[in-house]
Amino acid sequence: MITLASDFGSAYPAAMKGVVLSRTDARLVDVAHDLPRQDVRAASFWLRETLPYFPPAVHLVVVDPGVGTDRRAIVLRVGDHVLVGPDNGVLRPPARRIADEHEGTPTIDAYEIVVENPASTTFHGRDVFAPAAADAHDVPPADLGDIERFSPLDPDELVDLVLPRATVESDRGVATGDVLVVDDFGNCITNVPGDFVRGCDHVEVNGEAVPVGHTFDAVPRGERLVTVGSHGNVECDVNHGRGDEAFGLAPGDDVRVVRD
Amino acid sequence: MITLASDFGSAYPAAMKGVVLSRTDARLVDVAHDLPRQDVRAASFWLRETLPYFPPAVHLVVVDPGVGTDRRAIVLRVGDHVLVGPDNGVLRPPARRIADEHEGTPTIDAYEIVVENPASTTFHGRDVFAPAAADAHDVPPADLGDIERFSPLDPDELVDLVLPRATVESDRGVATGDVLVVDDFGNCITNVPGDFVRGCDHVEVNGEAVPVGHTFDAVPRGERLVTVGSHGNVECDVNHGRGDEAFGLAPGDDVRVVRD
Amino acid sequence: MITLASDFGSAYPAAMKGVVLSRTDARLVDVAHDLPRQDVRAASFWLRETLPYFPPAVHLVVVDPGVGTDRRAIVLRVGDHVLVGPDNGVLRPPARRIADEHEGTPTIDAYEIVVENPASTTFHGRDVFAPAAADAHDVPPADLGDIERFSPLDPDELVDLVLPRATVESDRGVATGDVLVVDDFGNCITNVPGDFVRGCDHVEVNGEAVPVGHTFDAVPRGERLVTVGSHGNVECDVNHGRGDEAFGLAPGDDVRVVRD
Repeated sequence: MITLASDFGSAYPAAMKGVVLSRTDARLVDVAHDLPRQDVRAASFWLRETLPYFPPAVHLVVVDPGVGTDRRAIVLRVGDHVLVGPDNGVLRPPARRIADEHEGTPTIDAYEIVVENPASTTFHGRDVFAPAAADAHDVPPADLGDIERFSPLDPDELVDLVLPRATVESDRGVATGDVLVVDDFGNCITNVPGDFVRGCDHVEVNGEAVPVGHTFDAVPRGERLVTVGSHGNVECDVNHGRGDEAFGLAPGDDVRVVRD
Repeated sequence: MITLASDFGSAYPAAMKGVVLSRTDARLVDVAHDLPRQDVRAASFWLRETLPYFPPAVHLVVVDPGVGTDRRAIVLRVGDHVLVGPDNGVLRPPARRIADEHEGTPTIDAYEIVVENPASTTFHGRDVFAPAAADAHDVPPADLGDIERFSPLDPDELVDLVLPRATVESDRGVATGDVLVVDDFGNCITNVPGDFVRGCDHVEVNGEAVPVGHTFDAVPRGERLVTVGSHGNVECDVNHGRGDEAFGLAPGDDVRVVRD
Repeated sequence: MITLASDFGSAYPAAMKGVVLSRTDARLVDVAHDLPRQDVRAASFWLRETLPYFPPAVHLVVVDPGVGTDRRAIVLRVGDHVLVGPDNGVLRPPARRIADEHEGTPTIDAYEIVVENPASTTFHGRDVFAPAAADAHDVPPADLGDIERFSPLDPDELVDLVLPRATVESDRGVATGDVLVVDDFGNCITNVPGDFVRGCDHVEVNGEAVPVGHTFDAVPRGERLVTVGSHGNVECDVNHGRGDEAFGLAPGDDVRVVRD
């Protein structure tokens, strides 16, 4: 199984699929091809929350604003999962989450994909990553090093990306974090852990009192609420509406949550 | 085969796919993940017009504005088709259509999915419906009752949803209905049966004369026409343009069609 | 394997998939269903740049502004690839490219799909092309003529479509072409061959000097550049931005590129 994720929008992902299917008959599963464009942080969040649900697979990830520069093309092995993509940090949060949830919490092995002259400088998804994912699929994860152009790499040399965590002062009842991403519904997913608001009827978000609800329906349609989202984090939402507009929040914005 | 339909947009459907594929190796087919958001009526229309074309399958449907409330999670069996989703009516129109077109017009069996503590209150697509669809896939439809957490339910207890039908007064030459949905092209699909306008050169739509055409090309580009759409219903369209804008129509609006 | 491409947006492609899967258990691969709406030229470009990457397959293509008129429904065979769609030219550029890259550069065989009374006049994707693609999939390409409703056709009778080429005056250092398509990133893909700008530091585009870069990062964020895109053509782009807005270009617009 090979999963595919990118910020390519329409048509370009199909060229990757064609290249993969010309090399292997792996099952292909689209994760998403409309990840926030060239936004490595947001992509890493969505992939962290999505890829660990899959059975063992090769995960082809192409959110690659530095395509054609000297950023590395890499392959990570985490137990029986393999991630293929650019070395810009986007693979790190999902790789760590897969490791955390994997039997035995395996260490992460890394390889550089050595490509002398790719066919293009702007579409490594098609010319570098898709062939690598196909080839990685056809060997056991433990044998990735046998693929000639996969050169072992010290994981410490990789570009790292750590999604920030909120600062929680439990005794004062204050959590200070930020908005990680806004989803397609307009829900603002913060990095404040859901446990912080559990049991509260109301909290303050950036100075304004907002009800805490288990479900959107806890408030009338069009009203704001704070809930614990499906990722376990505090979300700023609106029932049947857009939280980003109602709270005036965008990705990266500071969020200060105060318990009563 | 498991088909997947939702109003989730990007990324969230992939978590459902991961959960399903972790439990079964069923073939997955995406129906659509950009169904009109939280719009149970529109979703039920699209699913009624789509799912019956599939061979026997499990149809996973998550358009679920009441997620986390006490609305039931249900499984319907219609002959050799199985529908899994929330008990908000969305499954009823496609289930009835499948029954109508199914050999022997089978009755509909219903089960409640009993889940004590789902992992989230906001993402039952991942935590409740996807596992149920995977499990339903791996038993013959007649044995759904053998799955322990599927509890038989009287279909009369289900939330019903009947897409409204137009009132047709053939002798007066008047049909009074409404716009069921507007598709991505801007075509306004009404519930007036296509037979009502067949053979007419012109009809009146809400008081204005409009040509009736077999094809969009029956009128010049940019001009309005009434046609019989692929669902067999009267549509208010524009050749190479948007019918919703030209007719001033939106989903739910009244449409009065008068024959000459 | 059957690939599917259309301008249908949401939901409609699923009816085609259902019809196909009711007739054959072929592997289905979505190419794109948001091709530029009713834009035969743009669709033919994207398909030319995408379909040749696939292994032998049946390619179902429905960009069909003349649906329901007397335009033919056709099947083209190019070696071990088969293309199914309307006879409006959309299949010609990808068919030629597949032939060019195919072992032995095969000639193109053509068949008309003869359908007496399709179920609709507006959705031949579901009622004509999907069944034809399924049936074509289940015979060897050399035996397409054995399918009764596939009637052999002289390829010279087909509607042709040739994507225009730029005029390159190498000695004067001037190339005159146009914008073929604008991709989802806003990159303006021209028909000026990439070789024309190779080795240049700057070129003039419609009278203004623009740097030439191997990668987007060759210029600061938000700045314009000319690059050689993944299709081998000159593109007018912006690093981390939209080239169409910065250059004031749209599909079909003239582009005059002058070397220093």
